[in-house]
Amino acid sequence: MALNIVLFEPEIPNNTGNIGRLALASGSKLHLIKPFGFELSDSRLKRAGLDYWQHLDVTIYESIDVFFKIHNDKTFVFFSSHGHKSHWEIAFKDNLFLIFGKESVGLSKSLIDKYKEQLYKIPLYSEHIRSLNLANAVSIVIYEGLRQLKQP
Amino acid sequence: MALNIVLFEPEIPNNTGNIGRLALASGSKLHLIKPFGFELSDSRLKRAGLDYWQHLDVTIYESIDVFFKIHNDKTFVFFSSHGHKSHWEIAFKDNLFLIFGKESVGLSKSLIDKYKEQLYKIPLYSEHIRSLNLANAVSIVIYEGLRQLKQP
Repeated sequence: MALNIVLFEPEIPNNTGNIGRLALASGSKLHLIKPFGFELSDSRLKRAGLDYWQHLDVTIYESIDVFFKIHNDKTFVFFSSHGHKSHWEIAFKDNLFLIFGKESVGLSKSLIDKYKEQLYKIPLYSEHIRSLNLANAVSIVIYEGLRQLKQP
Repeated sequence: MALNIVLFEPEIPNNTGNIGRLALASGSKLHLIKPFGFELSDSRLKRAGLDYWQHLDVTIYESIDVFFKIHNDKTFVFFSSHGHKSHWEIAFKDNLFLIFGKESVGLSKSLIDKYKEQLYKIPLYSEHIRSLNLANAVSIVIYEGLRQLKQP
Protein backbone atom coordinates (compact mmCIF):
# COMPACT_ATOMS: atom_id res chain seq x y z
CA MET A 1 0.00 0.00 0.00
CA ALA A 2 1.47 3.34 -1.02
CA LEU A 3 0.27 6.84 -1.79
CA ASN A 4 1.90 9.15 -4.33
CA ILE A 5 2.91 12.71 -3.47
CA VAL A 6 3.21 14.88 -6.58
CA LEU A 7 4.82 18.34 -6.32
CA PHE A 8 4.05 20.56 -9.33
CA GLU A 9 7.01 22.91 -9.93
CA PRO A 10 8.18 23.21 -6.29
CA GLU A 11 10.08 26.40 -5.50
CA ILE A 12 11.51 26.17 -1.97
CA PRO A 13 14.20 23.55 -1.28
CA ASN A 14 13.44 23.24 2.45
CA ASN A 15 9.86 22.25 1.62
CA THR A 16 10.84 19.61 -0.92
CA GLY A 17 13.44 18.28 1.55
CA ASN A 18 10.88 18.05 4.36
CA ILE A 19 8.36 16.42 2.02
CA GLY A 20 11.02 13.89 1.01
CA ARG A 21 11.48 13.01 4.68
CA LEU A 22 7.69 12.75 5.07
CA ALA A 23 7.38 10.58 1.94
CA LEU A 24 9.92 8.10 3.28
CA ALA A 25 8.43 8.15 6.80
CA SER A 26 4.94 7.48 5.44
CA GLY A 27 5.91 4.87 2.85
CA SER A 28 4.83 7.17 0.01
CA LYS A 29 6.36 7.71 -3.42
CA LEU A 30 7.51 11.21 -4.40
CA HIS A 31 7.04 12.70 -7.89
CA LEU A 32 8.66 16.06 -8.73
CA ILE A 33 7.58 17.98 -11.83
CA LYS A 34 10.03 20.49 -13.35
CA PRO A 35 10.89 23.32 -13.47
CA PHE A 36 12.06 23.60 -9.85
CA GLY A 37 13.00 26.79 -8.00
CA PHE A 38 16.27 25.14 -6.91
CA GLU A 39 18.88 22.62 -8.01
CA LEU A 40 18.47 19.03 -6.82
CA SER A 41 22.04 19.32 -5.50
CA ASP A 42 20.97 22.22 -3.23
CA SER A 43 22.42 21.75 0.25
CA ARG A 44 19.17 23.08 1.78
CA LEU A 45 17.25 20.26 0.10
CA LYS A 46 19.59 17.63 1.53
CA ARG A 47 19.67 19.27 4.95
CA ALA A 48 15.88 19.38 5.26
CA GLY A 49 15.70 15.80 3.95
CA LEU A 50 18.60 14.89 6.24
CA ASP A 51 20.43 11.74 5.21
CA TYR A 52 17.30 10.04 3.97
CA TRP A 53 17.18 11.21 0.37
CA GLN A 54 19.08 8.13 -0.90
CA HIS A 55 16.36 5.81 0.43
CA LEU A 56 13.51 7.72 -1.18
CA ASP A 57 11.39 6.44 -4.09
CA VAL A 58 11.48 9.65 -6.16
CA THR A 59 10.75 10.28 -9.86
CA ILE A 60 11.55 13.51 -11.72
CA TYR A 61 9.48 14.67 -14.73
CA GLU A 62 10.56 17.27 -17.29
CA SER A 63 7.04 18.73 -17.50
CA ILE A 64 3.43 18.24 -16.42
CA ASP A 65 2.67 16.86 -19.90
CA VAL A 66 5.27 14.13 -19.50
CA PHE A 67 3.85 13.31 -16.06
CA PHE A 68 0.28 12.92 -17.35
CA LYS A 69 1.41 10.93 -20.38
CA ILE A 70 3.15 8.37 -18.16
CA HIS A 71 0.34 8.21 -15.57
CA ASN A 72 -2.73 8.45 -17.82
CA ASP A 73 -4.29 5.37 -16.20
CA LYS A 74 -4.01 6.61 -12.60
CA THR A 75 -6.46 8.28 -10.19
CA PHE A 76 -5.64 11.86 -9.21
CA VAL A 77 -6.78 14.31 -6.57
CA PHE A 78 -5.68 17.94 -6.61
CA PHE A 79 -5.22 20.41 -3.75
CA SER A 80 -6.07 24.07 -4.00
CA SER A 81 -7.51 26.82 -1.84
CA HIS A 82 -10.12 27.01 -4.63
CA GLY A 83 -11.38 23.51 -3.78
CA HIS A 84 -14.88 23.16 -2.34
CA LYS A 85 -14.55 19.70 -0.79
CA SER A 86 -12.33 19.10 2.26
CA HIS A 87 -9.43 16.63 2.30
CA TRP A 88 -11.41 14.62 4.90
CA GLU A 89 -13.90 13.76 2.11
CA ILE A 90 -11.31 12.02 -0.05
CA ALA A 91 -11.82 8.27 -0.31
CA PHE A 92 -8.16 7.26 -0.15
CA LYS A 93 -7.07 4.09 -1.92
CA ASP A 94 -3.84 2.36 -2.77
CA ASN A 95 -1.72 4.17 -5.39
CA LEU A 96 -3.80 7.38 -5.33
CA PHE A 97 -1.90 10.38 -6.75
CA LEU A 98 -2.07 13.55 -4.59
CA ILE A 99 -1.09 16.63 -6.62
CA PHE A 100 0.07 19.83 -4.88
CA GLY A 101 0.77 23.15 -6.60
CA LYS A 102 3.75 25.43 -6.25
CA GLU A 103 4.24 27.52 -3.10
CA SER A 104 3.68 30.97 -4.64
CA VAL A 105 0.58 30.47 -6.80
CA GLY A 106 -0.57 26.86 -6.41
CA LEU A 107 -1.83 24.91 -9.39
CA SER A 108 -2.35 26.48 -12.82
CA LYS A 109 -5.84 27.70 -13.75
CA SER A 110 -5.98 25.21 -16.61
CA LEU A 111 -5.38 22.29 -14.23
CA ILE A 112 -7.96 23.62 -11.75
CA ASP A 113 -10.57 24.03 -14.51
CA LYS A 114 -9.90 20.63 -16.04
CA TYR A 115 -9.97 18.68 -12.77
CA LYS A 116 -12.48 20.70 -10.73
CA GLU A 117 -14.41 17.57 -9.70
CA GLN A 118 -11.24 16.18 -8.09
CA LEU A 119 -10.25 19.44 -6.35
CA TYR A 120 -9.91 19.42 -2.53
CA LYS A 121 -8.84 21.93 0.10
CA ILE A 122 -7.60 21.76 3.66
CA PRO A 123 -10.14 23.74 5.73
CA LEU A 124 -8.71 26.94 7.26
CA TYR A 125 -10.28 28.73 10.22
CA SER A 126 -8.83 32.25 9.97
CA GLU A 127 -9.60 35.11 7.63
CA HIS A 128 -5.93 36.07 7.87
CA ILE A 129 -4.58 32.88 6.34
CA ARG A 130 -4.91 31.89 2.68
CA SER A 131 -2.80 28.76 2.76
CA LEU A 132 -0.57 26.54 4.87
CA ASN A 133 3.10 25.90 4.34
CA LEU A 134 3.37 23.32 1.52
CA ALA A 135 5.16 20.65 3.58
CA ASN A 136 2.61 21.05 6.38
CA ALA A 137 -0.26 20.70 3.89
CA VAL A 138 1.21 17.52 2.37
CA SER A 139 1.75 16.11 5.88
CA ILE A 140 -1.88 16.69 6.86
CA VAL A 141 -3.22 15.03 3.71
CA ILE A 142 -0.87 12.02 3.78
CA TYR A 143 -1.63 11.20 7.41
CA GLU A 144 -5.37 11.44 6.79
CA GLY A 145 -4.77 8.90 4.01
CA LEU A 146 -2.78 6.65 6.33
CA ARG A 147 -5.50 6.93 8.98
CA GLN A 148 -8.05 5.67 6.45
CA LEU A 149 -5.83 2.95 4.97
CA LYS A 150 -3.41 1.77 7.64
CA GLN A 151 -4.90 2.47 11.05
CA PRO A 152 -5.32 -0.85 12.89
CA MET B 1 -13.44 25.39 20.45
CA ALA B 2 -9.66 25.66 20.42
CA LEU B 3 -6.66 23.40 20.84
CA ASN B 4 -3.36 24.48 22.40
CA ILE B 5 -0.01 23.90 20.69
CA VAL B 6 2.88 23.94 23.18
CA LEU B 7 6.47 24.04 21.89
CA PHE B 8 9.02 23.06 24.54
CA GLU B 9 12.27 24.97 23.93
CA PRO B 10 11.97 25.26 20.12
CA GLU B 11 15.30 25.65 18.31
CA ILE B 12 14.61 26.40 14.63
CA PRO B 13 12.92 29.72 13.75
CA ASN B 14 11.41 28.46 10.47
CA ASN B 15 9.59 25.71 12.35
CA THR B 16 8.15 28.06 14.97
CA GLY B 17 7.14 30.48 12.19
CA ASN B 18 5.38 27.73 10.24
CA ILE B 19 3.69 26.48 13.40
CA GLY B 20 2.50 30.04 14.12
CA ARG B 21 0.89 30.11 10.67
CA LEU B 22 -0.67 26.70 11.35
CA ALA B 23 -1.92 27.79 14.78
CA LEU B 24 -3.70 30.78 13.29
CA ALA B 25 -5.06 28.78 10.34
CA SER B 26 -6.44 26.10 12.65
CA GLY B 27 -7.84 28.44 15.31
CA SER B 28 -5.35 27.10 17.88
CA LYS B 29 -3.45 28.91 20.63
CA LEU B 30 0.34 28.82 20.64
CA HIS B 31 2.46 28.47 23.81
CA LEU B 32 6.26 28.83 23.58
CA ILE B 33 8.47 27.68 26.46
CA LYS B 34 11.94 29.27 26.82
CA PRO B 35 14.84 28.99 26.22
CA PHE B 36 14.51 29.29 22.42
CA GLY B 37 17.22 28.61 19.85
CA PHE B 38 16.50 32.00 18.25
CA GLU B 39 15.35 35.52 19.05
CA LEU B 40 11.64 36.28 18.69
CA SER B 41 12.71 39.18 16.47
CA ASP B 42 14.44 36.73 14.06
CA SER B 43 13.54 37.58 10.47
CA ARG B 44 13.32 33.86 9.63
CA LEU B 45 10.57 33.46 12.23
CA LYS B 46 8.54 36.30 10.75
CA ARG B 47 9.18 35.18 7.19
CA ALA B 48 7.98 31.62 7.84
CA GLY B 49 5.00 33.03 9.76
CA LEU B 50 4.49 35.58 6.99
CA ASP B 51 2.49 38.61 8.02
CA TYR B 52 0.27 36.64 10.35
CA TRP B 53 2.22 36.76 13.60
CA GLN B 54 0.37 39.86 14.84
CA HIS B 55 -2.97 38.02 14.72
CA LEU B 56 -1.74 34.99 16.64
CA ASP B 57 -2.83 34.08 20.18
CA VAL B 58 0.66 33.35 21.56
CA THR B 59 1.97 33.12 25.15
CA ILE B 60 5.65 32.96 26.13
CA TYR B 61 6.83 31.17 29.33
CA GLU B 62 10.21 31.64 30.98
CA SER B 63 10.45 27.93 31.85
CA ILE B 64 8.55 24.63 31.85
CA ASP B 65 7.96 25.09 35.60
CA VAL B 66 6.21 28.40 35.03
CA PHE B 67 4.11 26.79 32.29
CA PHE B 68 2.93 23.91 34.51
CA LYS B 69 2.28 26.24 37.46
CA ILE B 70 -0.06 28.38 35.34
CA HIS B 71 -1.79 25.43 33.66
CA ASN B 72 -1.97 22.93 36.54
CA ASP B 73 -5.71 22.37 35.96
CA LYS B 74 -5.42 21.53 32.24
CA THR B 75 -5.33 18.25 30.31
CA PHE B 76 -2.05 17.49 28.52
CA VAL B 77 -0.89 15.05 25.89
CA PHE B 78 2.79 14.71 24.97
CA PHE B 79 4.44 13.67 21.71
CA SER B 80 7.57 11.58 21.50
CA SER B 81 9.04 8.85 19.34
CA HIS B 82 9.09 6.91 22.64
CA GLY B 83 5.27 6.93 22.77
CA HIS B 84 3.45 3.61 22.39
CA LYS B 85 0.00 4.92 21.45
CA SER B 86 -0.63 6.62 18.09
CA HIS B 87 -1.95 10.17 17.75
CA TRP B 88 -5.09 8.65 16.15
CA GLU B 89 -5.96 7.20 19.59
CA ILE B 90 -6.14 10.62 21.28
CA ALA B 91 -9.66 11.62 22.33
CA PHE B 92 -9.41 15.28 21.41
CA LYS B 93 -11.49 17.77 23.38
CA ASP B 94 -11.80 21.53 23.65
CA ASN B 95 -8.79 23.24 25.25
CA LEU B 96 -6.55 20.13 25.17
CA PHE B 97 -2.83 21.01 25.49
CA LEU B 98 -0.57 19.27 22.92
CA ILE B 99 3.07 19.38 24.02
CA PHE B 100 5.90 18.91 21.51
CA GLY B 101 9.61 18.62 22.35
CA LYS B 102 12.56 20.40 20.84
CA GLU B 103 13.80 19.49 17.36
CA SER B 104 17.17 17.98 18.36
CA VAL B 105 16.27 15.72 21.29
CA GLY B 106 12.51 15.95 21.86
CA LEU B 107 11.10 16.08 25.38
CA SER B 108 13.25 15.64 28.48
CA LYS B 109 13.49 12.19 30.05
CA SER B 110 11.91 13.48 33.26
CA LEU B 111 8.82 14.70 31.35
CA ILE B 112 8.56 11.41 29.43
CA ASP B 113 8.81 9.39 32.65
CA LYS B 114 6.33 11.55 34.54
CA TYR B 115 3.68 11.62 31.80
CA LYS B 116 4.19 8.22 30.15
CA GLU B 117 0.46 7.44 30.23
CA GLN B 118 -0.21 10.56 28.14
CA LEU B 119 2.61 9.92 25.65
CA TYR B 120 1.71 9.56 21.95
CA LYS B 121 3.66 9.13 18.72
CA ILE B 122 2.96 9.66 15.05
CA PRO B 123 3.39 6.24 13.38
CA LEU B 124 6.37 6.07 10.99
CA TYR B 125 6.71 3.44 8.28
CA SER B 126 10.44 3.48 7.51
CA GLU B 127 13.41 2.13 9.42
CA HIS B 128 15.42 5.07 8.05
CA ILE B 129 13.34 7.79 9.74
CA ARG B 130 13.30 8.48 13.46
CA SER B 131 11.11 11.58 13.41
CA LEU B 132 9.26 14.06 11.22
CA ASN B 133 10.01 17.74 10.87
CA LEU B 134 8.49 19.45 13.95
CA ALA B 135 6.10 21.71 12.00
CA ASN B 136 4.91 18.73 9.95
CA ALA B 137 4.31 16.69 13.12
CA VAL B 138 2.29 19.49 14.74
CA SER B 139 0.26 19.88 11.52
CA ILE B 140 -0.64 16.19 11.44
CA VAL B 141 -1.76 16.16 15.07
CA ILE B 142 -3.75 19.42 14.93
CA TYR B 143 -5.68 18.38 11.83
CA GLU B 144 -6.51 15.01 13.36
CA GLY B 145 -7.91 16.99 16.29
CA LEU B 146 -9.92 19.24 13.96
CA ARG B 147 -11.24 16.18 12.12
CA GLN B 148 -12.56 14.79 15.40
CA LEU B 149 -13.92 18.09 16.72
CA LYS B 150 -14.92 20.25 13.76
CA GLN B 151 -15.63 18.02 10.78
CA PRO B 152 -19.26 18.56 9.72
